[in-house]
Amino acid sequence: VAAVACVLGVDVGGTKVAVAPVDRSGAQLAGALIEPSESGSTEAFLAALEATLVRSLAKFKEFAPPAMGLACAGTVDVSEGVVNKSPNLPLVDVPLARLLTEGLGMPVVLENDAKAAVWAESVAGVAVGLKHVVLLTLGTGVGGGLLLDGRVYRGAGGGAGELGHMIVQTGGVLCGCGARGCLEMYASGRALVRYASTRVRDPELDPEGVLLALRVKGRLTGGAVARLAMQGHPGALEAVEQLAGWLGIGLVNVSNTLNPEMIVVGGGVGRLGELLLGPAREFLGKNAMPPGRDEVRVVSAKLGNEAGLVGAGLAAWAAMAGTGDAGLGAGA
Amino acid sequence: VAAVACVLGVDVGGTKVAVAPVDRSGAQLAGALIEPSESGSTEAFLAALEATLVRSLAKFKEFAPPAMGLACAGTVDVSEGVVNKSPNLPLVDVPLARLLTEGLGMPVVLENDAKAAVWAESVAGVAVGLKHVVLLTLGTGVGGGLLLDGRVYRGAGGGAGELGHMIVQTGGVLCGCGARGCLEMYASGRALVRYASTRVRDPELDPEGVLLALRVKGRLTGGAVARLAMQGHPGALEAVEQLAGWLGIGLVNVSNTLNPEMIVVGGGVGRLGELLLGPAREFLGKNAMPPGRDEVRVVSAKLGNEAGLVGAGLAAWAAMAGTGDAGLGAGA
Repeated sequence: VAAVACVLGVDVGGTKVAVAPVDRSGAQLAGALIEPSESGSTEAFLAALEATLVRSLAKFKEFAPPAMGLACAGTVDVSEGVVNKSPNLPLVDVPLARLLTEGLGMPVVLENDAKAAVWAESVAGVAVGLKHVVLLTLGTGVGGGLLLDGRVYRGAGGGAGELGHMIVQTGGVLCGCGARGCLEMYASGRALVRYASTRVRDPELDPEGVLLALRVKGRLTGGAVARLAMQGHPGALEAVEQLAGWLGIGLVNVSNTLNPEMIVVGGGVGRLGELLLGPAREFLGKNAMPPGRDEVRVVSAKLGNEAGLVGAGLAAWAAMAGTGDAGLGAGA
Repeated sequence: VAAVACVLGVDVGGTKVAVAPVDRSGAQLAGALIEPSESGSTEAFLAALEATLVRSLAKFKEFAPPAMGLACAGTVDVSEGVVNKSPNLPLVDVPLARLLTEGLGMPVVLENDAKAAVWAESVAGVAVGLKHVVLLTLGTGVGGGLLLDGRVYRGAGGGAGELGHMIVQTGGVLCGCGARGCLEMYASGRALVRYASTRVRDPELDPEGVLLALRVKGRLTGGAVARLAMQGHPGALEAVEQLAGWLGIGLVNVSNTLNPEMIVVGGGVGRLGELLLGPAREFLGKNAMPPGRDEVRVVSAKLGNEAGLVGAGLAAWAAMAGTGDAGLGAGA
């Protein structure tokens, strides 16, 4: 039996590359091929990526993919297929779509990972059928993707949606971007670790010294704090509560600026679910302006790790249909 | 000679109503009729407004206006023509478009004043031909209007663009909206007065006691501080500088969230021009993310007081052409 036609959706991260077949409706029709990515030179990175993609074409050949969509973090010129700058890939102004299109003999399009994720959530995730959706990804950093009037919104130069870099505490903690007080410094996995760190050595908040032991071993990560919180650890719970307050600030700003129907919270920290969203939603309800205050839905992402590759696949489908923003390369 | 066909654009404020003929291109073809508005009961307000509009129809009858557009502050349901809530008008859930359409025998559409202003600036002001424009109005409060992909953006329920209520100082000054730390508390005319107030009684900053005298007389307004700053008064200049820093924060947040081509600064405080925009732009250049950091243009509004009525006129033209978001009333 011939498989349903699928494109390949690819999520290119700093440590691994995930590839899977994605059909027109955004369904992922097989488990992803996952390989480590190469973080050295641009050349080594590109060679390893192309080799992974060649293997994925072999693995998923029954789906006869006519095109490929790649999502990655950073500033991406979607119409030209160029990665301008990425926080976790050795790519500066690299025409990645053209290079891969030539190397693989198949059209390849690019998409920013957060934009891919909000696209995926709106087609095959928690926001199906909605037209005004904002995605906040709380991971090591804080990212954002905007779906406005039913389309991924990019702004003038592709930079719209940098929600992690809205300033919420003027003169606050210095961010990697150079500004002070960015939301990313208060609502990211790294912030969660900072909040938990202030609770070590307090016997009431870290009763068996679990946080302290993790810190000593260099294993006090956002994921570790989140797991402890879900198990009821008092210090970890306080750290999550502190982060939820800051997330609430971010939600207020998103609601007052864009008045979306839904704000989707994803990323590793987002997996805390209601433990995090409950108090953040309450803050929003007290502090945002109407009508968003009463009407916006704040929910957890549904697609999780797969959102990037599913959205990349949807970008490839849209490019083939001529409805997307990404241009198809010379191999098209 | 018959005049060019014009609609009437109306700006309905808490203290006055301004009406003028506006042609299809957004040009205002005659000086505005300006009358005081009635701030008592809903009924008195409506009767006075209708009387003013009847007089304006007589005054501008040579333009044979086929429709009228009204801009006002607050939450406006444009498609239903209802004012849900306004900070300066005695209207709560009032179907103003229908009432006036019936009373005047002419189609009347509504628009929010900041959305009208960004529309006007993009058609006949400083942002002609641009597709991604954000307007920040710095008056008694701080308002905003978004033009995204060439259209006024409203969000899910008409509430998009409440840029004065983005939180920029968590736990900061309590705002009338109920939240703490809103931009409006730091970048409005009222904030400018607060900043100037801390400079009275310092002989170096208020050499001849001008600020102090104004304060004693209850005349220390945003406009007064702005005028003094433009005359080189040291305390007023410091107050403007302080406000410019906060405006810079707002610009960073707008640029990082929406990556517009242009941010237009209007309102009474916006008349400070480069005295205000210079340092705010510099802050943006150091603190926003690329590409907005390097590419966004920050400029003064061009249409000034007329932006609201010109935008209201454009909303009426769009409604007649069937391209606007406002529905034409029963009189259409």
